[in-house]
Amino acid sequence: MHADPNGMSDSNRQWILASRPEGKPTEENFELVESERPEPDANEVLVRTRYLSVDPYMRGRMREGESYADPWAVGEPMQAGVVGEVEQSNHDDFEAGDVVAGNLQWAEYSIALGSELTPVDSDLAPISTALGVLGMPGRTAYFGTLEVAEPKPGETMVVSGAAGAVGSVVGQIARMAGARVVGIAGSERKCEWLTDDLDFNAAINYNQEDVHEALSEACPEGIDAYFDNVGGEITDAVFANLNVDARVAVCGQIALYNAEELPTGPRKLATLIEKRARVQGLLVSDFAPRFEAATERLGQWVSEDELHYEETITEGFENAPEAFIGLFEGENIGKQLVEVTEDVRAAS
Amino acid sequence: MHADPNGMSDSNRQWILASRPEGKPTEENFELVESERPEPDANEVLVRTRYLSVDPYMRGRMREGESYADPWAVGEPMQAGVVGEVEQSNHDDFEAGDVVAGNLQWAEYSIALGSELTPVDSDLAPISTALGVLGMPGRTAYFGTLEVAEPKPGETMVVSGAAGAVGSVVGQIARMAGARVVGIAGSERKCEWLTDDLDFNAAINYNQEDVHEALSEACPEGIDAYFDNVGGEITDAVFANLNVDARVAVCGQIALYNAEELPTGPRKLATLIEKRARVQGLLVSDFAPRFEAATERLGQWVSEDELHYEETITEGFENAPEAFIGLFEGENIGKQLVEVTEDVRAAS
Repeated sequence: MHADPNGMSDSNRQWILASRPEGKPTEENFELVESERPEPDANEVLVRTRYLSVDPYMRGRMREGESYADPWAVGEPMQAGVVGEVEQSNHDDFEAGDVVAGNLQWAEYSIALGSELTPVDSDLAPISTALGVLGMPGRTAYFGTLEVAEPKPGETMVVSGAAGAVGSVVGQIARMAGARVVGIAGSERKCEWLTDDLDFNAAINYNQEDVHEALSEACPEGIDAYFDNVGGEITDAVFANLNVDARVAVCGQIALYNAEELPTGPRKLATLIEKRARVQGLLVSDFAPRFEAATERLGQWVSEDELHYEETITEGFENAPEAFIGLFEGENIGKQLVEVTEDVRAAS
Repeated sequence: MHADPNGMSDSNRQWILASRPEGKPTEENFELVESERPEPDANEVLVRTRYLSVDPYMRGRMREGESYADPWAVGEPMQAGVVGEVEQSNHDDFEAGDVVAGNLQWAEYSIALGSELTPVDSDLAPISTALGVLGMPGRTAYFGTLEVAEPKPGETMVVSGAAGAVGSVVGQIARMAGARVVGIAGSERKCEWLTDDLDFNAAINYNQEDVHEALSEACPEGIDAYFDNVGGEITDAVFANLNVDARVAVCGQIALYNAEELPTGPRKLATLIEKRARVQGLLVSDFAPRFEAATERLGQWVSEDELHYEETITEGFENAPEAFIGLFEGENIGKQLVEVTEDVRAAS
């Protein structure tokens, strides 16, 4: 079902999970439904979506089974990071026109408790950055780099998924920390962006180069820290080059997310003994009490031009599934967003 | 070549590496050679071996290729932890009759610099313990448990290779730290020793039980810390039951040591994200500056009957390869030693 984008002012559109994907998600797994625009209750706020975030971790929520978050239910709305404007507020902290961010729905309009929303300062940076460099991906990079991978001056750090929303920030923070940084990404354009605009010391195009060989060449003194967004064979190649006392931050495994059964690969624990390496899984929500401090620091770096970012923006709410699926094809450079362009207020 | 055990007083016997094993080591990989008893130079000490230690890590040194230690050369003597008596000393710190420990050779007599030897207090405990509970295995357990696996009161900790020289000490230290401890071992006799003599809360016989199922039953609240001595499928089963914030100390991978090619298994990094778990490789030599403090603490626990140990002693220098090979068949309970029984001094 596809709704009329010029529908009535009190209408809403939502993407719901139509079915669980087998392997790579397809458009058939999503269904666009039209409904009435919801009304906020006491302490609730009605938010009009300006930007919707699509992120690799969402693939996990489409899958049945235990994880750190409950799976999305088939036939129900899906959640997403959203930046939007307050349309109507029953909460003292917000009024109509405020820009806010929150974990809302794949919807043009969502209801949230005021306590679930964060104000976005539109003077500080474009509001879309609240979903990228100044949002969850930026904070993931911040804590994962500084507190898990811990690059030191003079060390070599490798980042996979380096041109993504998280990886691109990771590499720049590691550079600021004094490390030599090598990024792994999937196209020449991405690699050029890393070395030319983001000051990475080297970049490896895994679609064109033998990653084992390219890493040996780009990291002649071995790898001291690794920030992993992808997993699989790229990560195998990195492990083969780890130095003694190496740290590995495991943030994502996008290469494996569409697998229906747990893939196998070389057993790595013996390497960890030899290298006394530490491998640690990372979930940014564990750092929630310190989000504000991280966002402030990231904002400062952006304003001082120390931290660069890029956004890949898909126009139109109806194209959200396509934008999400594109993540698994490596189509985005920097943060992938969906811009919900219709000015619903003007139409009302 | 087999030497006469009643050979001349100035003779020596050594085991040398005859060939590199393919798969599990066999007696053909070892050769017993007779030579002249060496003479100590300045600052050197001649040590008569009383006990020779065979340890799983030695399998790695029989293999060609890069590791944390150089491989043993074919045709050359092999190294081992040794406890022995000073036969002749050119070093001020030692005199004939002193009991010492050091990393010497698979030999009846070895030469060492005085600085490479540690005095052994024969009043404190049987001198053989300097190769076990009060030696490298005990210290590995001490640092690996308290500083890598970090069991907390009320947590559940699992130990694989639990009835070995390291694992048996790990479990007891974790009990002292207030954790519930579940050991995994390969026979009923070992399991009974763990629960009846070492105060483990439960023990799983991997040769008789489905480890996945047995772990679910023995660890109803999941696994907070894991000390891994074996790797492979036992470790896969443990990873499937890890709790959020779990710590894994990787000390050994004996199940994989005889593999000629790196075995494959389920990729585990996604689990680490879900559980924010930390996996860290452990090599006891990294803690060398604090060995003395650890040995003192271990000795105190032994003397207070807080820490129990057992030794499996193979008699006769000529049986050292057999004792070593037995490690991979799970034959030892507690520390596997070779007692070099001939009283060479009496014969001289």
